[in-house]
Amino acid sequence: MPIIQLKPHEERRIRTGHLWVFSNEIDMADDTIPDGGLAELVDARGSHLGQVYLNRHSLIAARILTRSRNPVDDDFLTRRIRTALKLRRRVLPDPRFGRILFGESDGLPGLVVDRYDTVLVVQIGTLGMEHLWPHVERALRRELAPEAIYLRSDMPSRSQEGLGPDCRFLDVRENGRVEVQENGLTFHTDVVTGQKTGWFYDQRENRALLRGRVEGARVLDAFCYAGAWSVSALAWGAAQALAVDASAPALELAAENAELNGVADRVEFRKADVFTELRRMDQANERFEVVVLDPPALIKSRARIEDGVRGYHDLNRLAMRMVKPGGVLFTCSCSHLLPREDFLPMLARAARDARVSFRVADFRGQAPDHPVLLAMRETDYLKCAVLERLE
Amino acid sequence: MPIIQLKPHEERRIRTGHLWVFSNEIDMADDTIPDGGLAELVDARGSHLGQVYLNRHSLIAARILTRSRNPVDDDFLTRRIRTALKLRRRVLPDPRFGRILFGESDGLPGLVVDRYDTVLVVQIGTLGMEHLWPHVERALRRELAPEAIYLRSDMPSRSQEGLGPDCRFLDVRENGRVEVQENGLTFHTDVVTGQKTGWFYDQRENRALLRGRVEGARVLDAFCYAGAWSVSALAWGAAQALAVDASAPALELAAENAELNGVADRVEFRKADVFTELRRMDQANERFEVVVLDPPALIKSRARIEDGVRGYHDLNRLAMRMVKPGGVLFTCSCSHLLPREDFLPMLARAARDARVSFRVADFRGQAPDHPVLLAMRETDYLKCAVLERLE
Repeated sequence: MPIIQLKPHEERRIRTGHLWVFSNEIDMADDTIPDGGLAELVDARGSHLGQVYLNRHSLIAARILTRSRNPVDDDFLTRRIRTALKLRRRVLPDPRFGRILFGESDGLPGLVVDRYDTVLVVQIGTLGMEHLWPHVERALRRELAPEAIYLRSDMPSRSQEGLGPDCRFLDVRENGRVEVQENGLTFHTDVVTGQKTGWFYDQRENRALLRGRVEGARVLDAFCYAGAWSVSALAWGAAQALAVDASAPALELAAENAELNGVADRVEFRKADVFTELRRMDQANERFEVVVLDPPALIKSRARIEDGVRGYHDLNRLAMRMVKPGGVLFTCSCSHLLPREDFLPMLARAARDARVSFRVADFRGQAPDHPVLLAMRETDYLKCAVLERLE
Repeated sequence: MPIIQLKPHEERRIRTGHLWVFSNEIDMADDTIPDGGLAELVDARGSHLGQVYLNRHSLIAARILTRSRNPVDDDFLTRRIRTALKLRRRVLPDPRFGRILFGESDGLPGLVVDRYDTVLVVQIGTLGMEHLWPHVERALRRELAPEAIYLRSDMPSRSQEGLGPDCRFLDVRENGRVEVQENGLTFHTDVVTGQKTGWFYDQRENRALLRGRVEGARVLDAFCYAGAWSVSALAWGAAQALAVDASAPALELAAENAELNGVADRVEFRKADVFTELRRMDQANERFEVVVLDPPALIKSRARIEDGVRGYHDLNRLAMRMVKPGGVLFTCSCSHLLPREDFLPMLARAARDARVSFRVADFRGQAPDHPVLLAMRETDYLKCAVLERLE
């Protein structure tokens, strides 16, 4: 097997359980390894570290598939998938709905697979995983016998791997409409026209925290997308909801989900830029018992962290002012560039500037079908704080 | 009312909702204010900030009781207590058992009250609260009509306020034996001879996370105190438990609780220094499906943070090695000097040194009857990570 050799001391992070090799850590990579191909990773003294796939054009030049010397073949991939499915059977309320493969966290770097019962939605993030995909596909079909697999590889990050978008059904299917069951409720979404893979399974357990907190409440759902937060709140006893999003197709989905759950008469959908609308409502002195703030990732790149954090601060400052005394704010960030440890301090600054005081009733992360590796903090991306405004 | 005036710009933290004034932030305090007495706090330009109690001999020279100008009297204290009780009725599974006042978080700095049904256990941490206590006691008796109040003011931190220990029943009562109901189980403890106020209510919700994770497991409970973790695990299906503590009275309580819950035949109690015992067991290759590591605060002072963090690291490194592949570690720190943001990185280093890999299945804090103020991160002290060892 061809060799990739690290510079002296660069094996240390790898030995802690981290799976990435950055390009500047590599001393030498055999010319015979094609980009996207497999190689053995060794340290500066030639000791075996694991097997990786390579991409000379990516900042993350190699990703570890296994620490062992056993071949990366169909058997290996099948074992990885079975281990992942075993975890989901344990942590998912219903294993037919959820993220069944979460990249590095499941030992398959660059691969995300979400399951909508008989439909699998696949995101391939790296050239190396593109090369492995035919084997992975075979194993997935054998293990789960899906009716359809939809490739939804349109993440901007693919450009760093030299890859363009690639979205298509690998099976004959009319459209991307699917059903999701979550926390005892049923929703519709669309894996072709929806955001990301179609549904944010990572918020399942956080949305469940609405239960017992929304009785009789007026709820603001900012960045409502398909209405999961507001429709859940209404189904669990909220009196009224206002759901705001800038996307017309998202609001259509949300309206459909409100109808489906028999709460359409208690929700108002508003197409608007959320920043602008929050500012307007704040000035109009609109107040809510429950505010949900679940924006898309506001930090677009490492170079623009400051701008992004300011965005979170401004949004939260506005949202905080709109929470009635005794009310509650669910505030989230899915930006992996805003680390967990910076989230509460950012919220504390926003609360200071909003001149309101909060209790931290809960501080959660992503759902357990999106496992976090202790050795790889990059796998921990979702923050969700439940803040109760003091009376 | 006599005045305490801050130096220029020192009002900023106070305006964010923080309740502490450090001695070096004070420009002038009226001589007429006795230590422990009330005063008005104003900024350098004379603007009202709130009402505080003063202690010139403490590093935390003043603590804010209220931002308003209304008198700090029996009515005020009663309102604070009622607000605190209202929160407990909402967040406690059974409001007869839990922390009903948690100092700054409930707007009563320096005061902790734990409730054991008809017995209240009180910790007074500051001279100012000592002065207010007669009024607080009156209000507590009116609101809750306890059979007995036990003063358990023996925290080392009292010396910084110029106070010695003060432990006594304010009512006639034979001894400190009380019953606790937690997560559907019944325990005994002793508010006089037990640790802290007798029970660690702050771990209630974290212990509940054992449910569904212990079926058939062999459990190690390190620093077992009164056996809450191991007895709960056994009651919820664990096959066997080994509970280790250095304190003979703690082990006696734990044995009584095992008996009480009908699990005494499945638990072994071992009196030993936990560090030494973990080292011995590791060398003897003893392994467990579930390990609980819930040590007392290992960081004794700000000057000794490094030592304390090393202690946590060493303990966790040992405990991590003793978790079988696929098993789970519940690891906690109640040290407020180890901030939440440093806990997972410390665990990641320990895992590296133990050469084992973990998933972060959960990362929690203290129970909701110990509220956390967003503006005062000092109120957030308990960390509890649930780590699953990879197979």
